[in-house]
Amino acid sequence: MTQFADFLAQRVLLRRTPVMVGLDPRADQLPACVLGPQTRPDSATVASAYREFCRGVIDVVAPLVAVVKPQVAFFEQLGPAGMAVLSEVIHYAQARELIVVVDGKRNDIGSTAAAYAEGWLGRGQSPWGADALTVSPYLGDDSLQPFIDVARAREAGVFVLVKTSNPGGPLLQDLQADGQTVYARVARVVREQSEQSRGRSGYGLVGAVVGATYPEQLAELRGALPGSWLLVPGYGSQGGSARDVAAAFDDQGLGAIINNSRGIIFAHTRPEYRDRYGDGQWQSAVEAATREMMEELRGETPAGRLART
Amino acid sequence: MTQFADFLAQRVLLRRTPVMVGLDPRADQLPACVLGPQTRPDSATVASAYREFCRGVIDVVAPLVAVVKPQVAFFEQLGPAGMAVLSEVIHYAQARELIVVVDGKRNDIGSTAAAYAEGWLGRGQSPWGADALTVSPYLGDDSLQPFIDVARAREAGVFVLVKTSNPGGPLLQDLQADGQTVYARVARVVREQSEQSRGRSGYGLVGAVVGATYPEQLAELRGALPGSWLLVPGYGSQGGSARDVAAAFDDQGLGAIINNSRGIIFAHTRPEYRDRYGDGQWQSAVEAATREMMEELRGETPAGRLART
Repeated sequence: MTQFADFLAQRVLLRRTPVMVGLDPRADQLPACVLGPQTRPDSATVASAYREFCRGVIDVVAPLVAVVKPQVAFFEQLGPAGMAVLSEVIHYAQARELIVVVDGKRNDIGSTAAAYAEGWLGRGQSPWGADALTVSPYLGDDSLQPFIDVARAREAGVFVLVKTSNPGGPLLQDLQADGQTVYARVARVVREQSEQSRGRSGYGLVGAVVGATYPEQLAELRGALPGSWLLVPGYGSQGGSARDVAAAFDDQGLGAIINNSRGIIFAHTRPEYRDRYGDGQWQSAVEAATREMMEELRGETPAGRLART
Repeated sequence: MTQFADFLAQRVLLRRTPVMVGLDPRADQLPACVLGPQTRPDSATVASAYREFCRGVIDVVAPLVAVVKPQVAFFEQLGPAGMAVLSEVIHYAQARELIVVVDGKRNDIGSTAAAYAEGWLGRGQSPWGADALTVSPYLGDDSLQPFIDVARAREAGVFVLVKTSNPGGPLLQDLQADGQTVYARVARVVREQSEQSRGRSGYGLVGAVVGATYPEQLAELRGALPGSWLLVPGYGSQGGSARDVAAAFDDQGLGAIINNSRGIIFAHTRPEYRDRYGDGQWQSAVEAATREMMEELRGETPAGRLART
């Protein structure tokens, strides 16, 4: 196996795009052919529909992109039936050569954080088998360490929430303390840890989540974290544009993966695709939206250089 | 049904103790009669052992205490099999008249946080059916709101991480910004939300997690959060004593629930109980450790007044 950051670089170069597809199934937005109009379907029915839907998305995007990001919340919302489907979805995606970054925003105090890390991280080496996991930093550096240790031992990765994409993120993250913002303090921990694990790609196993909706901070954090992959949510539906994320990349077009969830997986509901494809051809809408985002990033960001590598 | 904070007060008064038993099963500490010495048991085997063990703990503590706190990490560590057992454990505890606070430290941006809230909160009203859930504040106030909204609609509760019990917690939580600590800023959000939902007990549905290992801050936060239940981890194994948590209570001995996980559920491994009970009578050790903690809190804290209500 290969160190996670190098593995990610290899796959991004192979697919020539930093697009990451977010697997955020929501019962009320599924195509009618996947989950017909039902009044209050039970969890098992919805979970089955999520399985079919996510497989359908994966079949379309696996030849196009390098990474998918299942959002645990939507599977967990369904109880144990949803979690069983999440496990299947992770393995299905990996079998199709996709890297799977599980978006769980997990954390706890050290010895408990270790349980999360042991359970989630490592393809073929843990019950969930994720290639990487998002983690929350509020509990401090000793809570992040078990994730980093387990990730290192299993060639997996960790993405620490630094600057999130939502409007309320600044409440704590932008507080100024000791001459720096709280998010900059978190970034310092990420930097220290990632520097120690840099691979051939120049990146280490500890990445950072930095929202597309804060372009200035994205540029600041690219500079502050030269050894970290940035996972950038907030593109599309949340308002981030290709121009907004341009500063997230290094000169080669590496160093950032740009997530789009609803804008791709529910493309069949977007006005520009609804008429052309509709529910019946929802997978064609997924493909069109993925290709469109790939083109946007090629045109407006250093990711265009990936195509010429 | 009853507003969550009032429900909690009722049950604490009925049991006359603020002891909360943490359900943190760990494979390597289970009594040998529950999970015999096996080299690398598979997840399903361990999950079955967790089911048996947690039921055994619940059978012992249900007549004694008001609340249990399953730690999701240890179930999640086992993959889908563990999550299925967690669901059973939640329902088993509630059937024995225990309040179940799920320790998941969940959160995400608003629309995704809503999925966690919908999935976890509400006895008999959600797939997991928890009475309350712990949530992490790093994503800001808009990420907490969906939990509070769902909790209000379902008579459930939320405990926001304010000041955690681990040594690394201060890294972010104690940063001074705009004349107050980060944890005090989080507490302000908790206060605003809890004030709006105060029930007959004087407490609202938004509580705070404040570690026993920081007694001064515990006193400060009791004062700052007059309308919030405090969930206090860190007692026992982590170093917090009965005297340390005395300031967490109001004058009636209400307002705080004091968690103990390992010190109770793995009492059979503690030197003072090992010789007396050993593995074979591990449930007797659980009972003895629970009663011992009840006595400590009666003797050293305002919880002693609960016994005289």
